[in-house]
Parts: sequence; C-alpha cells; structure tokens
Amino acid sequence: MDSMTLIAMVSIVIAGLTTGFGTMAPALGEGRSVAAALSSLAQQPDAAATITRTLFVGLAMIESTAIYCFVVSMILIFANPFWNYAIAQAAGR
Amino acid sequence: MDSMTLIAMVSIVIAGLTTGFGTMAPALGEGRSVAAALSSLAQQPDAAATITRTLFVGLAMIESTAIYCFVVSMILIFANPFWNYAIAQAAGR
Amino acid sequence: MDSMTLIAMVSIVIAGLTTGFGTMAPALGEGRSVAAALSSLAQQPDAAATITRTLFVGLAMIESTAIYCFVVSMILIFANPFWNYAIAQAAGR
Amino acid sequence: MDSMTLIAMVSIVIAGLTTGFGTMAPALGEGRSVAAALSSLAQQPDAAATITRTLFVGLAMIESTAIYCFVVSMILIFANPFWNYAIAQAAGR
Amino acid sequence: MDSMTLIAMVSIVIAGLTTGFGTMAPALGEGRSVAAALSSLAQQPDAAATITRTLFVGLAMIESTAIYCFVVSMILIFANPFWNYAIAQAAGR
Amino acid sequence: MDSMTLIAMVSIVIAGLTTGFGTMAPALGEGRSVAAALSSLAQQPDAAATITRTLFVGLAMIESTAIYCFVVSMILIFANPFWNYAIAQAAGR
Amino acid sequence: MDSMTLIAMVSIVIAGLTTGFGTMAPALGEGRSVAAALSSLAQQPDAAATITRTLFVGLAMIESTAIYCFVVSMILIFANPFWNYAIAQAAGR
Amino acid sequence: MDSMTLIAMVSIVIAGLTTGFGTMAPALGEGRSVAAALSSLAQQPDAAATITRTLFVGLAMIESTAIYCFVVSMILIFANPFWNYAIAQAAGR
Amino acid sequence: MDSMTLIAMVSIVIAGLTTGFGTMAPALGEGRSVAAALSSLAQQPDAAATITRTLFVGLAMIESTAIYCFVVSMILIFANPFWNYAIAQAAGR
Amino acid sequence: MDSMTLIAMVSIVIAGLTTGFGTMAPALGEGRSVAAALSSLAQQPDAAATITRTLFVGLAMIESTAIYCFVVSMILIFANPFWNYAIAQAAGR
Amino acid sequence: MDSMTLIAMVSIVIAGLTTGFGTMAPALGEGRSVAAALSSLAQQPDAAATITRTLFVGLAMIESTAIYCFVVSMILIFANPFWNYAIAQAAGR
Amino acid sequence: MDSMTLIAMVSIVIAGLTTGFGTMAPALGEGRSVAAALSSLAQQPDAAATITRTLFVGLAMIESTAIYCFVVSMILIFANPFWNYAIAQAAGR
Amino acid sequence: MDSMTLIAMVSIVIAGLTTGFGTMAPALGEGRSVAAALSSLAQQPDAAATITRTLFVGLAMIESTAIYCFVVSMILIFANPFWNYAIAQAAGR
Amino acid sequence: MDSMTLIAMVSIVIAGLTTGFGTMAPALGEGRSVAAALSSLAQQPDAAATITRTLFVGLAMIESTAIYCFVVSMILIFANPFWNYAIAQAAGR
Repeated sequence: MDSMTLIAMVSIVIAGLTTGFGTMAPALGEGRSVAAALSSLAQQPDAAATITRTLFVGLAMIESTAIYCFVVSMILIFANPFWNYAIAQAAGR
Repeated sequence: MDSMTLIAMVSIVIAGLTTGFGTMAPALGEGRSVAAALSSLAQQPDAAATITRTLFVGLAMIESTAIYCFVVSMILIFANPFWNYAIAQAAGR
Repeated sequence: MDSMTLIAMVSIVIAGLTTGFGTMAPALGEGRSVAAALSSLAQQPDAAATITRTLFVGLAMIESTAIYCFVVSMILIFANPFWNYAIAQAAGR
Repeated sequence: MDSMTLIAMVSIVIAGLTTGFGTMAPALGEGRSVAAALSSLAQQPDAAATITRTLFVGLAMIESTAIYCFVVSMILIFANPFWNYAIAQAAGR
Repeated sequence: MDSMTLIAMVSIVIAGLTTGFGTMAPALGEGRSVAAALSSLAQQPDAAATITRTLFVGLAMIESTAIYCFVVSMILIFANPFWNYAIAQAAGR
Repeated sequence: MDSMTLIAMVSIVIAGLTTGFGTMAPALGEGRSVAAALSSLAQQPDAAATITRTLFVGLAMIESTAIYCFVVSMILIFANPFWNYAIAQAAGR
Repeated sequence: MDSMTLIAMVSIVIAGLTTGFGTMAPALGEGRSVAAALSSLAQQPDAAATITRTLFVGLAMIESTAIYCFVVSMILIFANPFWNYAIAQAAGR
Repeated sequence: MDSMTLIAMVSIVIAGLTTGFGTMAPALGEGRSVAAALSSLAQQPDAAATITRTLFVGLAMIESTAIYCFVVSMILIFANPFWNYAIAQAAGR
Repeated sequence: MDSMTLIAMVSIVIAGLTTGFGTMAPALGEGRSVAAALSSLAQQPDAAATITRTLFVGLAMIESTAIYCFVVSMILIFANPFWNYAIAQAAGR
Repeated sequence: MDSMTLIAMVSIVIAGLTTGFGTMAPALGEGRSVAAALSSLAQQPDAAATITRTLFVGLAMIESTAIYCFVVSMILIFANPFWNYAIAQAAGR
Repeated sequence: MDSMTLIAMVSIVIAGLTTGFGTMAPALGEGRSVAAALSSLAQQPDAAATITRTLFVGLAMIESTAIYCFVVSMILIFANPFWNYAIAQAAGR
Repeated sequence: MDSMTLIAMVSIVIAGLTTGFGTMAPALGEGRSVAAALSSLAQQPDAAATITRTLFVGLAMIESTAIYCFVVSMILIFANPFWNYAIAQAAGR
Repeated sequence: MDSMTLIAMVSIVIAGLTTGFGTMAPALGEGRSVAAALSSLAQQPDAAATITRTLFVGLAMIESTAIYCFVVSMILIFANPFWNYAIAQAAGR
Repeated sequence: MDSMTLIAMVSIVIAGLTTGFGTMAPALGEGRSVAAALSSLAQQPDAAATITRTLFVGLAMIESTAIYCFVVSMILIFANPFWNYAIAQAAGR
C-alpha cells in the first residue's frame, strides 16, 4: 500500500498548494482592478455604466485563472487518473 | 497504521497552509480596494452610492478566492477521499 | 504512541503557523484601509459618516480572512478529527 | 511498480505547480491591464470603443500564456507519453 | 520520555515563532495608521476629534490580530491539550 | 528500467517548470505594454492606428520568448533525444 | 540528560529569535511614525500638542507588540513550564 | 549506463532552466521598451518614424540575449559534446 | 561534556544573530527618523526646538528595541540559566 | 570514468546557468536604456542624432557583460582545460 | 579536542556574520541620513548649523547599533566565556 | 585522482558563477547611467559634450568591477595555483 | 590535523563572506549620499563648501562600517586566536 | 592530502564569491552616482567643475569597497596563510 499512500499524499499536497498559491495573484489583480474602478468612478461619475461593465468583464477574465487552479485541485482530489489506476491495480492484485 | 498517519499529517499541514497563505492575497487586495473606495468617497462624495455598490461587488469577488482556499481546507479536514479510503482499508483489513 | 506524537506535533506546528502568518496580510490590509480613511477624513471632513461606515464594513470583511485562519487553528488544536481518530484507535487498542 | 509511482507523483506535482504558479503572472498582468483600461475610460470616455477593443485583444494575448500552462498540465495528467510508455511496459511485462 | 520532549520542543518553537512573526504585520500596519493620522492632523487640525477616534478604533482592530497570535502562543505554552494528554499518558503509564 | 524512469521524471519536471515559470515574464511584460497602450490611447486618441500597430508588433516579440519556452517544453515531452536514445537502448538490450 | 539539553537548546534559540526578529517590525513602524510626526510638525507647528500626544499613544501601541515578543522570550528563559517539568522529572528520577 | 543517464538528466534540466529563466529578463525589458514607445508615441505623434525605428533596434538587441539562452539550450539538447563523447565511449566499450 | 558543548554553541550562535539581525530594523528606523527630521528642519527652521525634542524621544523609543536584543544577547552569554544549570550538573556529577 | 562524468555534468550546469542568469541583467539594463531613449526622443526630437548615438554606445557596453557570460559558457563547453586534462588522462591511462 | 573545535568554529562564524550583516543596516541608515542632510542643506543653507548638529547626533545613535554588533564580535573572539570554560576544562583534564 | 576532480569541479563552478552573477550589477548600473544620460541629453542638448564625457568615465569605472570578476574567472580557469599544485603533486607522485 | 583544517576552512569562509557582504551596504549608502550631494550641488551651487564638507564627514562614518568588516576579516586571516591556539596545541602535541 | 584539497576548494569558492558578490553593490552605487551626476549636469551646466570633482571623489570612495573585496580574493588565492601552513606541513611530513 506504500505507493498508494505516496500518491495520496502528493495529491493532497498539490491540491492544497495549487489552490492556496494559485489564488493569490487573481486576488491581487482583482484588488487592483477594483481599486482602479473606484478611482475612475470618483473621477468620472458619468461613465459609471461603461466602467462597471468593463470591470466585470475584466474580473471574469482574471477570475478564470483562479478557476483553472481550482479545477486542477478538484481533478487531483476527486478525478485523479493516477489514483484511479492505483486503486484498480490494488483491487486487481 | 503508518500510512494513515502520513495521510493525516499531510492533510493537517496542507489544510493549515492553504488557509494561512491563501487568505493573504485576498486580505491585501481587499485592503487596497477599501483604501481606494475611501479615497474616492473623499474625492467625490456625491457618487457614494455607486462607489459603495461597486466596492461590495468587488469585495465579494475577491473574497471568493479566499473561500476557495477555505473550502479546500475544509474538504481536506472533514471530507478527505484519500483519508476515507484509508479508513475503509484499515477497517476492512 | 509514535504516530500520535507525530500528529500532535504537526497540529501544533500548523496551528501556530496558520495564525502567525495568516494574520499578517489582514493586519497590513487593515493598516492600509485605516490610513486611507484617515487621509480621506482630513481631506473631506464633511463625509465622515459615509467614510467611517464604509471603513467598518471593509475592516469586517478583511478581518474575516484572519478569522478563517484562527478558526482553522482552533479546529486543529481543539477539534482535530485526525487526533480524535488516533485517540479512539489508541483507546480501543 | 515503483517507477510508475514515481512518474505518477512527479506528474501530479508538476501539473499542479505549472498551473498554480503559471497563472500568477497572467492574473497580475490582466489586473494591470484592466486597471489601466478603467483609468483610461475615466480620462477619455469618448474613446471607449477603441479602449475596450484594445483591452480585449491584449487580455486574449495575456490569457494565452496562462493557457499554455493549463495545456501542459492537462497533457501531463491525461496524455502523458512517459506514463503511457510505463503502462505499456507494465502491461507487457 | 522522547515523545514528550518532542511535543515540548515543538510547542516552544511554535510559541516563539507565532508571536515573533505574527506581531510583525500589526506593528507595520499600526505604524502606517499612526503616520497617516499624524499627516491628517497636520493637514486638517480641526478634525482632530474624528481622526483620533477613527485611529483608535482602527488600532484596536489591527491589534486584535496580534492578540490572536499571542493567545495561540499562550495556549501552546500554558494550556496545550496535546501536552496535557501526554502528561496524562506518562502519569498513567 | 531505472535510468529511463529518471529521464522521464526529469523531462516531466523540466517541461512543466519551463512553461510554468517561462511564461511569467511575458505575461507581465505584455500586461505592462497593454496598460501603456491604453493610457496612450486615452491621452492621444488620434494616434490610435500607430499605437495599436506598434503594440501588436511589440506583443509579438514578447510572446516569442514565451514560445521559446513552450517549444522547449514540447521538445522535452514529445521529441526528447535522450529519451529516444534510452528507448532504443532498452529495445536493443 | 539528552532531552533536557534539547529543551534548553530550543528555548535558547527561540528566545533569541523571537526577540531578534519580533522587534524588527516595531522599530520600523516607530521609525515611520516618528518620521511622519516630524513632517507634520514642520507642516503645522501650531498643532504640536495634538501631534505629539497622538504620536506617543501610537508609539505605545506599537511598542506593545515588541513587548509581547520580549515577554515570550523572558518566559522561555526564566519561567519555561516545559523546562520546569523536565527538571522536576530529572530530580524525581 | 549510469554516467550517460546523469549527463542526459543534467542536460535536460539545464536546457529547460536556461530557456525558462533566461527569457524572463528579455520579456520584461521588451515590455518596458514597448511601454515607453507607446507613451512616447502618445506624447509626440510626429516623431513616430524615429521612435519605432529606435524601438525595433532596441528590441533586436534585447532579443539577442534571449537568443543566447535559446542557443545554449539547443546546443545542450542537440549538439552536446559531453553527450557525444559519452556515446562514443559507450559504443566503443 | 557533549550537552554542554551544544548549549555553548547554541548560545553563541543566538547571541550573535539576535544582536546582528535585531539591530537592523532600529538602524533603518532611526535613519528614517533622522532623515525626516532634517527635511523638517530645512522646511521649518523656526520649529527646530520641537522637532529635535520629538526626534530624541522617538530615537529613544526605537533604540529601546535594539536594547532588548542586546540585553537578550548579554543574558545568553553572561547569565544563561541553562548553561548555569549544566555547569552545576557537571560539577555535581 | 566517474570523475569525467562529474566534470562533464558540472560544465553543463555552469554553462547553462552562466548564460541563463548572466544575460538577465543586461536585458533589463538595455530595456531601461531603450525606454529612456524613447522618452527622450519624444521629449526632444531635435536631438535624435545625439540620443541614438549615445544609446548605441551604451547598449554596446551593456551587451559586453552579456558577452563575457556567453564567452565563459562557450569556453566551458568547447574549450574546457579541466575536461581536456581529464580526456588526456583517460586516453593515457 | 572535538568540542573545543566546535566552539571555535561557531565563534568564528558568528563573529564574522554579526559584524558582516549587523553593519548593513547602519550603513544604509547613515546613507539615508546623510542624503537627507545634503538635500536639506541645498534647500535651506541658512540652517546649516542646526542641520549638521542634528545629523551628527543622529549618526552617533545609528552608529551605536553597529557598535553593539562589533562589541559582540569582539567578545566572541577575545573574551568568550564558553571558550574560556572549555580551555579551563581542557587544561584541568 | 579524486582531489583533482574536486578542485576542477569547484573551479568550473566558481568561474561560471563569478562571471554570471558578478556582471549583473554592472549591467544594471550601466543601464541606469545610460538612461540618465539620455534623459539629460533630452533636457539639456547644449551640454552634450560634458554629459557624454562624464558618462564614458562613469561607464569605465562601473565596467571595472565587471572586469574584476572576469579576471578572477580567467585566473580560476587558466592560472589556478591550487590546480597547478595538484597537477605537480600528481605528476610527481 | 582534522580540527585545524576545519578551523582554517571556517576562517577562510567567514573572512571572505564578511568582507564580501559587509561592504555591500556601505557601497550602496555611499552611492546614495554621493547622488544626493550631486543633486544638491546642482540645486544650490553656492553652498558647495558646506555640502562637500558634510558629504566627506558622512562618507567617513559610512566607510567606518566597511572598515569594521575588513578588520574582522583581517583578524580572522592573520591574527586568529583560535587558529593560534590550535597551532600551539599541534606543536606541543 | 585530503585536508589540503578542502582548503584549496574553500579558498577557490570564497575567492570567487567575494569578488562576484562584493562588486555588486559598488557597481550599483556607482551607477546611481553617475546617474545623479548626469542629471545634475543637465540641470546646472555651470557647476560642471564642482560636480565632476565631487563625483570622482565619491566614485573613488565607493570603488574602495570593491577593492577591499578584490584584495581579500587575491590574498586567498595567492597569499593564503592557511594554505601555506598546510603546504609546509605536507612538505615536512
């Protein structure tokens, strides 16, 4: 059962790190975007519609990189092909 | 019981690190957003309604990355499929 | 008792690190927010009510990330499922 | 089965790290671009059409580097030639 | 007595590090807040009452994160459940 | 089969790292270029044609460094001369 | 006597590091506060009373985080419960 | 075959790292140059010819450092004298 | 004599590091304060008395954190309770 | 053949790192110079001749440090005295 | 003589590091102070007496932290109580 | 022949690192100088003679530090006294 | 002779590092001071006498920290008490 | 001959690192000084004599720290007392 334990451990570690570190940059990038949006609103309140629309499109694109990380994490925890192969090997052994 | 201990240890470590480090960037990003909101309010008090609404939408999106991390932590502590498999193995052994 | 010691050690380490490092960013973010609030108050004293209300909402959201970390620390010290399982194993052995 | 375990572990680790770290810079770069777009909109609302069009072209190019990383991750998880070779070796052994 | 020594060592290390590093960010954040307060006072002496009140509320919230760290340190030194369990085990052995 | 496993592992690791880290700087550089382009458009809308043309030439040159990295990754995964030599050795052995 | 030596070593190390690193941030924060106070005094000499009073309150709060660290150091050197327990064990053995 | 494996591994690692890290700085430098070119175009549209000509010469010189790295990588993968010597030794052995 | 050597080595190391690193931040903080004081003097020569008085109070508080570190170093070299205990043990053995 | 393998490995590693890292700073420095040249051209188009001449002299001097690194790399790969000595030893053995 | 060698080595290492790193911050802080003094002199030549007097007092306080480090180094090289104890032990053995 | 291999390896490593890292700072410093020269030329075209003369003298002094590094590298590769001694020892053995 | 070799190695290492790293900060601090002096001279040529005198005093104080490091290096190479003791021991053995 | 090899290796390593890293800061500091000199010349061409004289004095002082490092390197390579002692020991053995 040693090799299964190793795969499980590695999957846990990487699932956590990928989400933990991979969401850092999106959070910072979104913070910067929101801050810029707020300054822009204060500077030009009449363009509020364009600004908020552009902001939401931008946030969606930035959030997409966080979601890539979350997806990889979820694949590693719940749909890990290496783990499935190992279970199949262990069951067939 | 060695492999269970390893999985438990790794789960504890990663649960803590994912939350501990993964909430850093959201906190910084939210701090930046709030600071920008306050400066904007001081600069254009008349646009307070638009500014605070945009701020809250932005904070919610930034907070979502922190919540991804917290969710992964909680999954690793309370709904860890590798741990469940190991318990099942140990019970059936 | 070796595996229990390991789990205890890891729980102590991660509980401390999660709180110690996870509260860094909120403290910095709150410092930035408070600084911005004070500058805004000096710039536009008439908007004090809006500014302080927005500040407190923002501080609450930033503080929430620190509280996630503190909660994970407390779970690891006082309600650790892996530790409880190990105690149950040790008691039943 | 040792060499298969090693390849599986390495593939998991690198798949996670490549996505986790490789999406950092795109998120930051997109955050910067969006922030610049919002400031530009506030400064020159009449050029909104040109600005948003340039922004979307730029975001697409930046996002492409994140997609390179995601593609490498997916290749390593689902279409890894080294893993396939190892499975073929194990099956034929 | 080996496992007790390990738990004691880890508790000492983490108690020190949690306080030593966890108080860094609050100190920096408070320094920033105080600096902003002083600049604001110089800029708008008439709003001194509002500024100092907001400053003290902000300092209290920032200090709270330092106190979380100090509390975890004190729990690890004086009310450590893992250490208590180990003493109970050693006494009952 | 040990030396083949090592070469496979190293190829996987380096393929991931080269893409993961090598695309960081292009993403940041492109983000900076796009941000500058947007500011320039806001400042001088009449020069939109020259600005976007220069931007696209610049993005292409920056993207080329990301493509060098991606090419090296693909060579290491799908056309690795050391791996081919090792397979030939293993087949002929 | 081995376990006592280890506890002594760890206590010495952490006592030094906690004070050595934990006083860094307060020193920087106080430096920033004092610098801001001096600039404010130069800008608005008439508000000297308010500025210095606020400065001293702020310095006291920042210094408190340095004192937490110093207190933990002193506890670890002169009132270390783990060391006392170990001495009691050694004496009673 | 051990020494050949080592040389192969080291060549793969260094080929990847040299390209992966060596293209970072050119990408950043080119991003900076392009950004400066765009700002200059916005500021002085009449000098577009001189600016773009100087930009392209500069980009070529910066790109040359990326190409040094790519050349070293290609030499290590496809024309490595140490690998050739080792193959000759292995063939003649 | 092995455990005494270890305690001596650790005490030397930590005494040096605590002073060496713990005096960094005070030196930087004092440098900042002095720089601010000089700028303030140049800006408002008439407030020289208030400025220098505030500067000296501030320098004293910053210096206090350096002195905490120096005190801990001196305690570890000349009044180390763990070393004294070890000498007593060695003498009584 | 062990010592030859070691020398070969070390030569490969250092050849790659010297070029990979040694070209970083020239690329950044050239990027800065080109950016400054472009800003200067925009500011003072009449001095274009002097500016571009000074730029090219400067780029040549900066490029020279990158060439030192490339030369050392090439010496280590193609004219390595230690490797030649080792081959001579191996041939004469 | 092994334990004496260890103490000697550690003393040499720490004596060098304490001076080498501990004088960094004072040098930077003094550089900053001198730079500020020179700017102030250029801005307000009439206040030269006050400025240089304040500068020298400030430099003395900053230099004091460098001197703490130098003193600890000298104590470790020429008046090291642990080394003296070890020599006494060796002589009396 | 082991000790000769070690000296050869160390000489190769250090020769590469000294040149690779030692030319970083000169490249950055020269880039800064050239950038400043270009800005100065744009600002004051009439002083071109003085500016370029001072620039070349400065570049020569900065380049001298890069040349120190290159000289040490060349000494280590082609005139290494430790290597010569080892060859003499090996020849005379 | 083993312990003498160790002391010699450590002395060489620390002598080099103390000088190599300990002269970094003085060089940076002096660079900053000289830069400030030159700016001040350009701004207020009439105060050249005061400025250069203050500059030289400041440079002397900053240089003093570099000299502390050089002195410690020279002591470790040419007047090392631990090395002398070891030679005396070796001679008397 | 083992201890001689160790001393030779350490001397080579430290000689390279001391020069390689120790010349970094002087290069940066000189770059800053030259940049400031050029800006000053552009701002105040009439003070060229004073500026260049002060620049050369400053460069000489900064260069002196680089020369300390080079001297230590040369001492370690060509006049190393520990190496001389070891040779004398080896000759007399």
